[in-house]
Amino acid sequence: MKFASDNNGPVHPKIMDALVRANEGSVPSYGADALTAAAVEKVREAFDAPEAAVFFVPTGTSANALLLATHARPWETIFAASFAHIHVDECHAPEAFTSGAKITPVGKDIDKFNADELQTAISAFDLSNMQQSAHGPVSVTQVTERGTLYTLDELSAISKVCRKAGVMLHLDGARFANAAAALGCSAAEMSWKVGVDAVSFGATKNGAMAVEAAIIFDPKRAEEFRRRQQRGALVFSKARYLAAQMDAYLTDGLWLELASAANECAATLEAGLAGIEDVKFAFPRGANMIYAWMPRFRHQALMKAGAYYYIEQGTLDGADAHEPLLGRLVCDWSVEPASIQRFVEVARQARA
Amino acid sequence: MKFASDNNGPVHPKIMDALVRANEGSVPSYGADALTAAAVEKVREAFDAPEAAVFFVPTGTSANALLLATHARPWETIFAASFAHIHVDECHAPEAFTSGAKITPVGKDIDKFNADELQTAISAFDLSNMQQSAHGPVSVTQVTERGTLYTLDELSAISKVCRKAGVMLHLDGARFANAAAALGCSAAEMSWKVGVDAVSFGATKNGAMAVEAAIIFDPKRAEEFRRRQQRGALVFSKARYLAAQMDAYLTDGLWLELASAANECAATLEAGLAGIEDVKFAFPRGANMIYAWMPRFRHQALMKAGAYYYIEQGTLDGADAHEPLLGRLVCDWSVEPASIQRFVEVARQARA
Amino acid sequence: MKFASDNNGPVHPKIMDALVRANEGSVPSYGADALTAAAVEKVREAFDAPEAAVFFVPTGTSANALLLATHARPWETIFAASFAHIHVDECHAPEAFTSGAKITPVGKDIDKFNADELQTAISAFDLSNMQQSAHGPVSVTQVTERGTLYTLDELSAISKVCRKAGVMLHLDGARFANAAAALGCSAAEMSWKVGVDAVSFGATKNGAMAVEAAIIFDPKRAEEFRRRQQRGALVFSKARYLAAQMDAYLTDGLWLELASAANECAATLEAGLAGIEDVKFAFPRGANMIYAWMPRFRHQALMKAGAYYYIEQGTLDGADAHEPLLGRLVCDWSVEPASIQRFVEVARQARA
Amino acid sequence: MKFASDNNGPVHPKIMDALVRANEGSVPSYGADALTAAAVEKVREAFDAPEAAVFFVPTGTSANALLLATHARPWETIFAASFAHIHVDECHAPEAFTSGAKITPVGKDIDKFNADELQTAISAFDLSNMQQSAHGPVSVTQVTERGTLYTLDELSAISKVCRKAGVMLHLDGARFANAAAALGCSAAEMSWKVGVDAVSFGATKNGAMAVEAAIIFDPKRAEEFRRRQQRGALVFSKARYLAAQMDAYLTDGLWLELASAANECAATLEAGLAGIEDVKFAFPRGANMIYAWMPRFRHQALMKAGAYYYIEQGTLDGADAHEPLLGRLVCDWSVEPASIQRFVEVARQARA
Repeated sequence: MKFASDNNGPVHPKIMDALVRANEGSVPSYGADALTAAAVEKVREAFDAPEAAVFFVPTGTSANALLLATHARPWETIFAASFAHIHVDECHAPEAFTSGAKITPVGKDIDKFNADELQTAISAFDLSNMQQSAHGPVSVTQVTERGTLYTLDELSAISKVCRKAGVMLHLDGARFANAAAALGCSAAEMSWKVGVDAVSFGATKNGAMAVEAAIIFDPKRAEEFRRRQQRGALVFSKARYLAAQMDAYLTDGLWLELASAANECAATLEAGLAGIEDVKFAFPRGANMIYAWMPRFRHQALMKAGAYYYIEQGTLDGADAHEPLLGRLVCDWSVEPASIQRFVEVARQARA
Repeated sequence: MKFASDNNGPVHPKIMDALVRANEGSVPSYGADALTAAAVEKVREAFDAPEAAVFFVPTGTSANALLLATHARPWETIFAASFAHIHVDECHAPEAFTSGAKITPVGKDIDKFNADELQTAISAFDLSNMQQSAHGPVSVTQVTERGTLYTLDELSAISKVCRKAGVMLHLDGARFANAAAALGCSAAEMSWKVGVDAVSFGATKNGAMAVEAAIIFDPKRAEEFRRRQQRGALVFSKARYLAAQMDAYLTDGLWLELASAANECAATLEAGLAGIEDVKFAFPRGANMIYAWMPRFRHQALMKAGAYYYIEQGTLDGADAHEPLLGRLVCDWSVEPASIQRFVEVARQARA
Repeated sequence: MKFASDNNGPVHPKIMDALVRANEGSVPSYGADALTAAAVEKVREAFDAPEAAVFFVPTGTSANALLLATHARPWETIFAASFAHIHVDECHAPEAFTSGAKITPVGKDIDKFNADELQTAISAFDLSNMQQSAHGPVSVTQVTERGTLYTLDELSAISKVCRKAGVMLHLDGARFANAAAALGCSAAEMSWKVGVDAVSFGATKNGAMAVEAAIIFDPKRAEEFRRRQQRGALVFSKARYLAAQMDAYLTDGLWLELASAANECAATLEAGLAGIEDVKFAFPRGANMIYAWMPRFRHQALMKAGAYYYIEQGTLDGADAHEPLLGRLVCDWSVEPASIQRFVEVARQARA
Repeated sequence: MKFASDNNGPVHPKIMDALVRANEGSVPSYGADALTAAAVEKVREAFDAPEAAVFFVPTGTSANALLLATHARPWETIFAASFAHIHVDECHAPEAFTSGAKITPVGKDIDKFNADELQTAISAFDLSNMQQSAHGPVSVTQVTERGTLYTLDELSAISKVCRKAGVMLHLDGARFANAAAALGCSAAEMSWKVGVDAVSFGATKNGAMAVEAAIIFDPKRAEEFRRRQQRGALVFSKARYLAAQMDAYLTDGLWLELASAANECAATLEAGLAGIEDVKFAFPRGANMIYAWMPRFRHQALMKAGAYYYIEQGTLDGADAHEPLLGRLVCDWSVEPASIQRFVEVARQARA
């Protein structure tokens, strides 16, 4: 009953096998090895983007911060949803890597914004006023931090606003695979074909050990990214072990297979909880994350039974057994059906 | 005949096995797992430092840059040898992480400096002059970037100068194990017992996949390090896989065993080359690195035979077959005796 | 009819005279001159703070950014009103000087926040969560960016929240004198006596040429400020000319005399406009700034007649002559009564 | 007998008069005033550079740091003489403003380098090696920090190396006027005509209160400079008072007149000291600075008689009356002949 995060699960055996297979002999370091070249090609193929610049980094925050820093000047503001990971969960990595760019929250919802809201937010900054921020990159998260999705049309509309404003569009795809699986679209369709300029393509939460691909579709900023990666202490000497993960992840559709499995687990969990009268969902489930309001007594029963997940709003201890608390439940590919079943049962049978 | 770097070799099987063993079930992320706690304890035990703050990061540069940033203010200068990795091989990571501290080269030799030279360098900065740099951390590399060693007495003398100046002493130990094995001393003896305040304790070059421990003996700066690590995008979500490597590395003396093996390979190689009349060594070998002057024709023969290593001074192509070029030869634990033997033979039998 | 800003006016003759008087002979540079020492003492006396660290800088933004950087770490967030000058009008100087601290808007009003809102904002950041911002300085602006005032009780309540949270309280006093004059309180009463830790004490907008005093009541951070000032390129070599301005500003109560004059001008202007039926004030006037909603045709008539001020909301051109536009009107000491009278007359007599 | 620095002297009366004259009425702030526009034109005329971007800042360090930051990326190294002001006297302002660029000392002399030395220094960095610094701006100081001069031919040769390497050439002209007066050349001849791309054009040391012009001959980076100036808190609200100084400085050749006067004072002082047997000059005097070795007893007599200047090497107290100490003597336009005469007399008549 472990639903705290999709980064709690293990590495998928096929990816671990790839690491073991890569562990042969002496090869050039810092990305000059054949496996890195092959994995870069795999990413380009997956995105149908033969010219794209591709870099492997060990954390999602590093992909985000380096991509944003490569495209933002220190006096620009980045535009993002108010609960964007880059804004509230990266301990100022974007501000640090950009040397002081700001992040402006966009829209009335915490997880997503739309093209109109973006246009309003951008227009609020007057480029002729040197005291204000200049217009910087726009960043969307797909799957969002609240488990919802942008449709391709929504992304397309947002990118049109970006084009008009002359700013780039970044997609934080820590859960890119989950989104693509949910939308049934290709990596290209969910990125450059709808006007996305750069992607943090996550693998870690979806079965890898620690690797994300930072992808820039127009390669003219490749050199800058590489320099920033180096000064960010984010270049692996034994690069083959990042590449081996990504290579296996993109082989035979493993990335979509694992994401689909995770999404399905979440769907099953959601369906189970939906049958309990006092459970309400805070956001429409897009992929592998559920935000569920449940009365305190159900949370208490679950925790007592060994469930592991986060209460996002409210506290487990409290006098009112019926007060609704917001729980976050995340599935990765490794969640077992029995675990979901038991979670639903414990929640259902809890008594105040 | 691959002697380009000790980061070209594979992961030692025991460390790879540890990764496979760690790959079970769902565990808390970001270092809250039991394996991370155990590995931290292993490091403390290895250093006989039960209070030390210990952090796992994936690259040597990140250990160096985070430790220096945790101890240096932006208006301070760091003191280091003129060929220190932090000065010439980290693409300004120390400057970036410290938000603008400088690095002042110390001493007349490129690889090492002594206590007197350090005192002179520090005294050159007048603290009452606000236009100049203030005194910041001192950093020594052990094994040095030219393969030489500081004796414990030399380190001790340097640390006394640091104490007097009120600055901390950092040790860049990318090859800490090779130095400890060569000196036959304990980790404690080569660090806090001679006055070192913080250590970048490398494992990657010595058989790990990608892990270094950043160690601060006085834990009062632990919180600052942790915050800097987070904003540096250098905290692994699946932290267990860093911990597993370090845990195995420190189990049953594997770290010293591998370092000794590497040092021995280098000794064998050195002895072999020493028998060739026109080969001269540029630096006294301390551990697993050799800097050898050899006439061009020998380098050409070696490269032609498939040897892989760097020419540090001079160029392979050139009219004068007898012009000496400086080659750098590095061994890790995985170098095979036959490879060494062949290298020596090719070098010896080469003809101008 | 020039009401665009209190930084458009000239230097007061007494301050200009002081500059001329200071222009004698050769004196030590970088603040080691007697006039600087005397001016520092004048500030300490004005604030009844004999131990305070006092620095002279040429711009208000530099006072703010240096004081905040001296008290904030890069992973902390600063708390301020959503329209705080530091947040929206300093082109990321606080982010630059702090190397990446963030600014969190506090409260529902754009100009001010109260103690409860501050407590809520601080509590939203969980210090045990390393991914989030840590708690940093709180900054209030007095007079606020919308011309309103904090009462001493409000400041006191805010400072209590700061104390509890262990963070410092900064006061952006670009218009400190206008506030003190309006509240009829002393500099001490409006600063350390209500728990303010550091003040940007403005003079430029109130009759000086270019000088602000950065004041830290607890001098233990003085050295850090001085180093940051130096690396910020904000130390004048001919420091006497900053000191001369501040010295004259604080002599014989000139600072309060000029501020009172400016406040009175604004009061007269406000009273005149209040007599026009369709004029509405957006904020209660605290000192020398007025935010007035007036129908478009009145703004058009004023502009046509040569008035100079900013339309903060809405555009001068537009079909609807009666649409209300928000005008900002600021007075400094040099505004002439005739100018006010004429402005009111033009506004009143305008016809749609 | 005050020869400590040319920033110790007063503001020239013509410049002070200009400030007084500018002190009339209400004008737009932040550089939108007519006087700023006029002063910008004056600079363009003086440099025969009608397209140049021109900005006024209050300190020499700010002109240097902003110009370098506008042209250097954080992973580049700046090339400069080892005693360059930007390297040893700006408390890391260049490192701060560039977000972490380094400065590489060039050449064997401390004050100057030549084209060959620059080529060697640049070539030492291999652009294909991402761990090293990339090539950044080259900065020369004219008059140098040791009072010497580059000839126009030397500058031209240096700029050719810059062109070849694709890097820009910055001239730190804190004493630009003194150099131009000494060389008898125009501002254009000493800047863009010999390939200089950007100039810190000093006025403060030569009779102004606090103003320097930052000049970029190719204006395409103007916007970036302006943004950096704003986030550096270096934009004056009452900009007219910077402009008034520069305007007067460039009117009727005042800048060259004052510089010539200062140079002449130094020549007279040099000639006087040259007549004393045990006085030796450390550097050939180029303009208004002298570095003189004199035995300790002469320094002691001078200090006792009230002379004010810096001992650059050695300490005033010491047993050996005849030990040579290096004194730095700087003249500005305001030095009186009697003062020079007396200095020479005291030095001459001193007895051990």
